[in-house]
Amino acid sequence: MTDHAPPSPRTTMKRGADRGVYNPDVIRKVLADGVVAHVGVATDDGPIVLPMAYGVDGDRILIHGSVANAMMRSGSEVDVCVTVTLVDGLVVARTPFHNSMNYRSVVVRGTATRIDDPQAKLAALKVINDHVAPLWDIARPPSETDLKKTMVLSVPLTESSAKIRQGDPIDEPQDMDGPHWAGVVPLTSTWGRPEPADDLIDGIVTPGEVAALTDTVL
Amino acid sequence: MTDHAPPSPRTTMKRGADRGVYNPDVIRKVLADGVVAHVGVATDDGPIVLPMAYGVDGDRILIHGSVANAMMRSGSEVDVCVTVTLVDGLVVARTPFHNSMNYRSVVVRGTATRIDDPQAKLAALKVINDHVAPLWDIARPPSETDLKKTMVLSVPLTESSAKIRQGDPIDEPQDMDGPHWAGVVPLTSTWGRPEPADDLIDGIVTPGEVAALTDTVL
Repeated sequence: MTDHAPPSPRTTMKRGADRGVYNPDVIRKVLADGVVAHVGVATDDGPIVLPMAYGVDGDRILIHGSVANAMMRSGSEVDVCVTVTLVDGLVVARTPFHNSMNYRSVVVRGTATRIDDPQAKLAALKVINDHVAPLWDIARPPSETDLKKTMVLSVPLTESSAKIRQGDPIDEPQDMDGPHWAGVVPLTSTWGRPEPADDLIDGIVTPGEVAALTDTVL
Repeated sequence: MTDHAPPSPRTTMKRGADRGVYNPDVIRKVLADGVVAHVGVATDDGPIVLPMAYGVDGDRILIHGSVANAMMRSGSEVDVCVTVTLVDGLVVARTPFHNSMNYRSVVVRGTATRIDDPQAKLAALKVINDHVAPLWDIARPPSETDLKKTMVLSVPLTESSAKIRQGDPIDEPQDMDGPHWAGVVPLTSTWGRPEPADDLIDGIVTPGEVAALTDTVL
């Protein structure tokens, strides 16, 4: 499944190694398809994992959100793990030990660095806001106050890996002729039709950039 | 949104506190609707966050998966954060600063304890396997070898909180009469029709427990 070497010892799969993928194209595709990242950081008070919006720019993943301040309390750099997962189905095996999920997941481990330069921050925010759909250019540009209130972090994709499970359950040979069902129940996530805000003034049509999401499957 | 006090200082929302919910019923509903948990642990090598199957039994969340061994390397107890998120939509505001997601999320912080007692472990595995659909009783029971290969962890729900965002964007007053669209694009995750494994022998019909998932929306 992989012809790419793991980029570092801590990125090397220890279990389920057959599902580990270090191919940058695979990693980027999963990151392109995902919607939220789960960002983990070790605090004095124990680990914390919070969902955050993200975007990908070149060889780094960009994150921002309510957690940023807490994460960065200790300085302008912090060790993080950014994980993006899409669940594609429930894998029903002939015995519970082989029950599983079909999924696509990427784990990025690295040092998050705060982006403070105003122009770089603006560019990074555009990437994050445009991750799911190109929303940046259809909106009123952010004010200086907006920018000051927002913290943006950058994590290099250097130490990243993908793990992908697809297809049927893999059962024990002795169970194959047994009476138990086996298969997959797919889980499909689909963007629906845009719903205008209740307070939207008359005459503003749904932008094509937003409407284009409709019926897109993750 | 909440008439329940936060259970501990580290569970208290620092940002977006208006979306924080300490009501156990709300927390349990989100956990019941979720499919995978993102489990974070602080290792000597930095934080790591991995997706895992889970289940809820009384006042604790149960997890197992490939990460368990790595997590438990240091002993039979480890400090973890277990986060379950469902994304419900993209919130498109009149300015990027107010773009957001609609989501339901629960964060559980606590000490994970390994379940070693064989009967307790069996019961916990049933809870995890039955979380999405009652798969346990339709399959061949696990063997002793299966049980030995599996690690199950229990985390108390004592320190947990939910964060829920629903509805329209909340824009600045000065933007309300502007030319920009605002609204929500819903994201819907739906279980599909069960797909029998290619190697399923003839004559085994799809169990009702599995078929019942079809068209269920998360």
